[in-house]
Amino acid sequence: MSLNDLHALPGITAQPDAATANFVFNHTMLRVKDIEKSLDFYTRVLGFTLVDKRDFAEAGFSLYFLALADRNSIPEDDTARHQWMKSIPGVLELTHNHGTENDGQFAYHDGNSDPRGFGHICISVPDVVAACERFESLQVPFQKRLADGRMNHLAFIKDPDGYWVEIIQPTEL
Amino acid sequence: MSLNDLHALPGITAQPDAATANFVFNHTMLRVKDIEKSLDFYTRVLGFTLVDKRDFAEAGFSLYFLALADRNSIPEDDTARHQWMKSIPGVLELTHNHGTENDGQFAYHDGNSDPRGFGHICISVPDVVAACERFESLQVPFQKRLADGRMNHLAFIKDPDGYWVEIIQPTEL
Repeated sequence: MSLNDLHALPGITAQPDAATANFVFNHTMLRVKDIEKSLDFYTRVLGFTLVDKRDFAEAGFSLYFLALADRNSIPEDDTARHQWMKSIPGVLELTHNHGTENDGQFAYHDGNSDPRGFGHICISVPDVVAACERFESLQVPFQKRLADGRMNHLAFIKDPDGYWVEIIQPTEL
Repeated sequence: MSLNDLHALPGITAQPDAATANFVFNHTMLRVKDIEKSLDFYTRVLGFTLVDKRDFAEAGFSLYFLALADRNSIPEDDTARHQWMKSIPGVLELTHNHGTENDGQFAYHDGNSDPRGFGHICISVPDVVAACERFESLQVPFQKRLADGRMNHLAFIKDPDGYWVEIIQPTEL
């Protein structure tokens, strides 16, 4: 569908209000049960860098901010890094409520069974076949392998809480 | 917390695997009940541009991809735009299951009551006070106004399905 056709759909404001200039879709927040497992998954398996952590000891939770950024682009200075990570798109915020990792029965809801809502996050990679082979070698669980079903150009892996992570590549396979 | 201290936390892989170079956190997917209301909210209120739509008529759903991008950076050519929107961070994918908008009882789950999981998305704006005044003038519902509670530098508004949208600015107020 052309941009002109997309802009003619019901509900669409084709010319953004000037007041929204420089708005940035900064982050998505997911709650995680075991922060150590999640940090391992997002940094080792997917290549994110932890760029900030905020502790709320009295309220019993901590926030972790991760970005898929070139290490050289991340400011060393804490104040500069804090402002930088609030200004870029593609940040992942993980909320850890302290102690959930010690409760064997505790689990978060991935949104893909009732009651549904949130569906998934998606990582774009240069080579989806190579990326999926690496995930297999790292024993990452798959929700959908490339070969499953009819959509053979995309896969879904699962993070430690079972949240779905779609894997795509920008170009045709 | 310094980058060195962040990188020493349990679970962290401080040096990303070279295999993850050029991985991009491309998008977050949310299911929406009434796509016309959602397109209105995300384009008129928040300034997103609809950059792609995919219909799956047999399966009864459509996917809408929105980006907060300078209009001049969006490729006009459909193939080029398709590859571009799979290569950038900060895309929002909305899934519309056809007909849900006609069911008065139907509602998606925002993730912030049991069973919890997904929490919110966040838009970074140049001036959070001015942005919130505009949202008030547009009669956007708030989950938390700037003046509510102790965190007076951030607000939460709600999209048409009740998903929480945090509003922040990168710099100190």
